[in-house]
Amino acid sequence: MISVDEAKKIIIENVSPLAPTEVYFEDARGFCLAEDVRSDIDMPPFNRSAMDGYAVIAEDTKTAPVVLKIIENIAAGDMPAKKVSQGCVSKIMTGASVPEGADAVVRFEDTDDTGEEDRVKISKSVKTGANISNRGEDIQIGQIVLHAGMQIRPQEIGILATVGKSVVKVYPAPAVGIISTGNELVNVDEKPSPVQIRNSNSYSLAAQARRMNAGVEILGIAGDRKEDIVEIMTRGLQKDVLILSGGVSMGEYDLVGDVLKEAGVRIYFEKVALRPGKPVIFGKKDKTLIFALPGNPVASLVTFELFIYPAIRKLMGFSSLSRTTVAALLETDISTKRRRREFRPARCQWKENTWSVSPVEWHGSADLLATTKANCLLIIPEEAETLSKGQLIDIILLDNLC
Amino acid sequence: MISVDEAKKIIIENVSPLAPTEVYFEDARGFCLAEDVRSDIDMPPFNRSAMDGYAVIAEDTKTAPVVLKIIENIAAGDMPAKKVSQGCVSKIMTGASVPEGADAVVRFEDTDDTGEEDRVKISKSVKTGANISNRGEDIQIGQIVLHAGMQIRPQEIGILATVGKSVVKVYPAPAVGIISTGNELVNVDEKPSPVQIRNSNSYSLAAQARRMNAGVEILGIAGDRKEDIVEIMTRGLQKDVLILSGGVSMGEYDLVGDVLKEAGVRIYFEKVALRPGKPVIFGKKDKTLIFALPGNPVASLVTFELFIYPAIRKLMGFSSLSRTTVAALLETDISTKRRRREFRPARCQWKENTWSVSPVEWHGSADLLATTKANCLLIIPEEAETLSKGQLIDIILLDNLC
Repeated sequence: MISVDEAKKIIIENVSPLAPTEVYFEDARGFCLAEDVRSDIDMPPFNRSAMDGYAVIAEDTKTAPVVLKIIENIAAGDMPAKKVSQGCVSKIMTGASVPEGADAVVRFEDTDDTGEEDRVKISKSVKTGANISNRGEDIQIGQIVLHAGMQIRPQEIGILATVGKSVVKVYPAPAVGIISTGNELVNVDEKPSPVQIRNSNSYSLAAQARRMNAGVEILGIAGDRKEDIVEIMTRGLQKDVLILSGGVSMGEYDLVGDVLKEAGVRIYFEKVALRPGKPVIFGKKDKTLIFALPGNPVASLVTFELFIYPAIRKLMGFSSLSRTTVAALLETDISTKRRRREFRPARCQWKENTWSVSPVEWHGSADLLATTKANCLLIIPEEAETLSKGQLIDIILLDNLC
Repeated sequence: MISVDEAKKIIIENVSPLAPTEVYFEDARGFCLAEDVRSDIDMPPFNRSAMDGYAVIAEDTKTAPVVLKIIENIAAGDMPAKKVSQGCVSKIMTGASVPEGADAVVRFEDTDDTGEEDRVKISKSVKTGANISNRGEDIQIGQIVLHAGMQIRPQEIGILATVGKSVVKVYPAPAVGIISTGNELVNVDEKPSPVQIRNSNSYSLAAQARRMNAGVEILGIAGDRKEDIVEIMTRGLQKDVLILSGGVSMGEYDLVGDVLKEAGVRIYFEKVALRPGKPVIFGKKDKTLIFALPGNPVASLVTFELFIYPAIRKLMGFSSLSRTTVAALLETDISTKRRRREFRPARCQWKENTWSVSPVEWHGSADLLATTKANCLLIIPEEAETLSKGQLIDIILLDNLC
């Protein structure tokens, strides 16, 4: 039985990013950039006034207070028509182009009315360059502004707009297919008989994949017969990622492993030393990654985050593949005798300048309701026998924090 | 001039959650639940085997090893047909219903083959209740499983599926309209003249709102003439939230404040003591919230997160309204002489069991490119003159951490 870390390593080694695709820049949010983006302009594109005020020759303000002549009124978007010469100023708005001749801007707040429309009293001297953002100060024409591999967030969308890059190359999100197996499963809209339960894993797994921007198709429920599984799986093998839920234990109706092998799927591992979620299959056929997860809902949730999350991140071109792990102060004692690494649903919060964490009360890996009280997974190392209140312990953050 | 905290308080006091709406449960992810959800079933719905093995009377295994008679084979989804009586067992699969009479399950691993098809050797005794999850252990029929106010994440989607709640009441996301003002602005697909720049704020603001699930319409660019602004604004006032970018400074072309007042918008504040982003207008007309933000791209990004983020969170029914703030060790000295609270783009990382943070190099509030290196905002308090390397400082996390 391999360790969690070995299993993750095997998955990552066997996943390559999907072929880049071009999208309209507004649709690129959340994706990973697949090309370097260069600017077609300087930013600012001209010497830009950072204030509302008067464009002056700094030297003229040395003897302030001083009255100077207003020769022009320049708004943002206006092309300055006149050169500022000694004794003269141009009135200028924030974002407007500083006229030739001027080398500083005096803010309105540092001027006074003279009573004459074409004259202004400068009450405070300014230094050369004051309140001017120089052409190309932030971005130079031809400069690479965004690098391949960056995640596109709102600020990157703003940069794409600034440099006129309306179509951009990104790594796409994978197409994911999901199959749940088990004779006991019925659809959400059905009322289960006394020996049945509703299919919930397909939907929680779909939500986990959709949270990562993946396109998901729920392919249905396969009964515990090989033919049933084979039929649905054939459709699933068209996807980039196929997730099967259930049917991976050692019981005689746990047919998923056999069906995958008979379908020519290359199996990389079938068991991982973790709890919950020991029976986890990872395989590959052509370009399709196949994950078969245990049917217990909590094991399903955990194994997605541990194994499918990094696979989808890599397919999407990202270099950071795992969820954020931080250390937190444990708020209760925990006893454990597992030889497998354990991931326990827990609730963390930031208080008194540190993360604190407590496991949520639960009845084991079928108790999905317990996970609705959790926002992280507490990692109990393989070798741990007891963990004590007040000690630091690693936790994997599951929710988006903001 | 009011403080950032006062401004946030005023906004929050003047926002009410939108009217709840019903959605298909798969589309509810990310939204806030607007009703309590009860279960229509027990979970497990029957005494459920947690293992593949044999359903036994625990008392019969006391003298293990012991050979018992197999009377039935029960798979998940099967209705057990026979009662287990003394000396008998039923073979049972994980997830199947434990038959009447049996009070424990012995795992396959603790049994041996006898060579006879209808007999099994139990090699280890079990206690009453072993490997059985009792009916209603996790969820009882009629129990409230999800409470109004909870955010719907993958695990809550799984619970909705489990209890058959296929249509669910949530608070919807607001409809957001965005207008950029300024004669200097051109569209993304245009090449700016030497005195123009491309409109980027509309797109970065749209991406910020969409990241929160809002439906966004970019209404266009209004020139610096009252008639232009009025015309586009009329369309914007149909939205739940109208965001205007630019035109809020003191210059003579900064017409947004006047136009809003003339349109009958009630203005709650027009300036906030912060940097960047002092000129920020918050108003309301009928049910539309109106935010007019400064045109500088970094100020635009910051003021959205400080003021519009909590407003949208409240419209969407959430009780936690602000982005996560944590304390981080400052990695460099920072000098400042501002009397306004300052929010500086910065980069944080988790290392050596704590958050560390450094401001990114930038040229001021027009330097959007600098923010592409940032993942948080460092908060410099009003009263601070210098901040020293190694001290703890609050930061607002901007990116989703996972």
